[in-house]
Amino acid sequence: MSTLFLVSMGPGGLDLMAPKALAAIQHCSDLVAYGLYLDLLGPVCAGKQHHPLPLGKETDRARLALDLAAGGNNTALISSGDIGIYAMASLVFELLDRELENNPHWLKAEVEVIPGISAMQVGASRAGAVLGHDFCTLSLSDLLTPWETIEKRIHSAGAGDFVIAFYNPVSHRRDWQLNAAREILLNYRPGSTPVVLGRHLSRENETVEITDLQQLRADAVDMFTLVAVGNTETRRIDNAGRQWVYTPRGYRQQ
Amino acid sequence: MSTLFLVSMGPGGLDLMAPKALAAIQHCSDLVAYGLYLDLLGPVCAGKQHHPLPLGKETDRARLALDLAAGGNNTALISSGDIGIYAMASLVFELLDRELENNPHWLKAEVEVIPGISAMQVGASRAGAVLGHDFCTLSLSDLLTPWETIEKRIHSAGAGDFVIAFYNPVSHRRDWQLNAAREILLNYRPGSTPVVLGRHLSRENETVEITDLQQLRADAVDMFTLVAVGNTETRRIDNAGRQWVYTPRGYRQQ
Repeated sequence: MSTLFLVSMGPGGLDLMAPKALAAIQHCSDLVAYGLYLDLLGPVCAGKQHHPLPLGKETDRARLALDLAAGGNNTALISSGDIGIYAMASLVFELLDRELENNPHWLKAEVEVIPGISAMQVGASRAGAVLGHDFCTLSLSDLLTPWETIEKRIHSAGAGDFVIAFYNPVSHRRDWQLNAAREILLNYRPGSTPVVLGRHLSRENETVEITDLQQLRADAVDMFTLVAVGNTETRRIDNAGRQWVYTPRGYRQQ
Repeated sequence: MSTLFLVSMGPGGLDLMAPKALAAIQHCSDLVAYGLYLDLLGPVCAGKQHHPLPLGKETDRARLALDLAAGGNNTALISSGDIGIYAMASLVFELLDRELENNPHWLKAEVEVIPGISAMQVGASRAGAVLGHDFCTLSLSDLLTPWETIEKRIHSAGAGDFVIAFYNPVSHRRDWQLNAAREILLNYRPGSTPVVLGRHLSRENETVEITDLQQLRADAVDMFTLVAVGNTETRRIDNAGRQWVYTPRGYRQQ
């Protein structure tokens, strides 16, 4: 029986990708991924059949990966970050749930998910430990989730005083949601609340900026930026010019 | 200048630990960690000075690591999972924030945080993709956080319909909080809501159980169990005996 590996490649650099993910790719004959990811992976992809469908064709990519694996080819469907967090794994299981009746051959493939380091973890690590206590992730994309639902979640995250990692904060066509989120959160936490902006994390042009909620602006952020907003306990420290952001009280308690 | 590396070892198996974490350990002369972690790491720790302080001595471990690095020794302070998520990184920065005045020598050490795969990510991967859309993490330990704060956050997570990954769900001395959390959440989502229980993840005796919110009981959970509770959209599927749990609508949207 062949396997469809849902592979997390981490933020981009091979040094933050789990050996198990690399081994899965090596085990496969077919790789399905956005072309840029295959470029980042480099030599490990040599000699494999590439299926580099473009961005925006997520459902097609997931179906193709299921078809390839069901057809007897060990196949890796690859996402950056953690494939289980705002990425392709959900979509594969959604197809296995809702389209199996028309595609019973998909049962011929085993499915194995391999986790990875997500962007919020890299961003947090570069700036200290902003995710050190209770946090939530929140996608600001309203393409498939109604804005009313997103707005309700921002209010809940504010009321619960969760640290927040925003995913999909802006895109070419969505530029106002992050500013709206800031205005909502200012009802729950002060303008001085630390904010971490991580751009192109783990890539050559990585930058990490520490700012605060009052100064957060959507036009300083692009779709490759991790935005992490502290809670009311999050602190910013400046030790001889070296700045850090951390959320206290989060170490393992026995 | 020597470096204090705050190293994430992932869930336990070396195949889910980032190469960068391994390289940092190799670069160090001194390792500070709970003894079990050093055992799991095995040969890579050979020839290093071990400082295996016991559980419960977290603050002592963090101070020792800072002192060692400030004294000119490249030092790795090692946590399982992601050291930035409910682990030691926050504590190190808290010391650098609150105790630097009495320990100015700590500025002699560089600090570098290396992220890793957290338990929730492994648990989710084993059972499908329960973290596929907006989620939060919530520690149920009330040793350093008042129960009133935790209770408020459970209500907020329920009202916001976040998928929830519980950390520190129970301990030898804390056995009622998870049941209390279940009762609160039943006000917001049905008893049939899927729940993933991942025990000893990535270890030899790993088990993954899929149950539901109504049946969740604290006495089926220990301190090494990852408890992930779906939201109202989370679905459980059973394809020819193979069960999965996923939360839809979470793939990257352009």
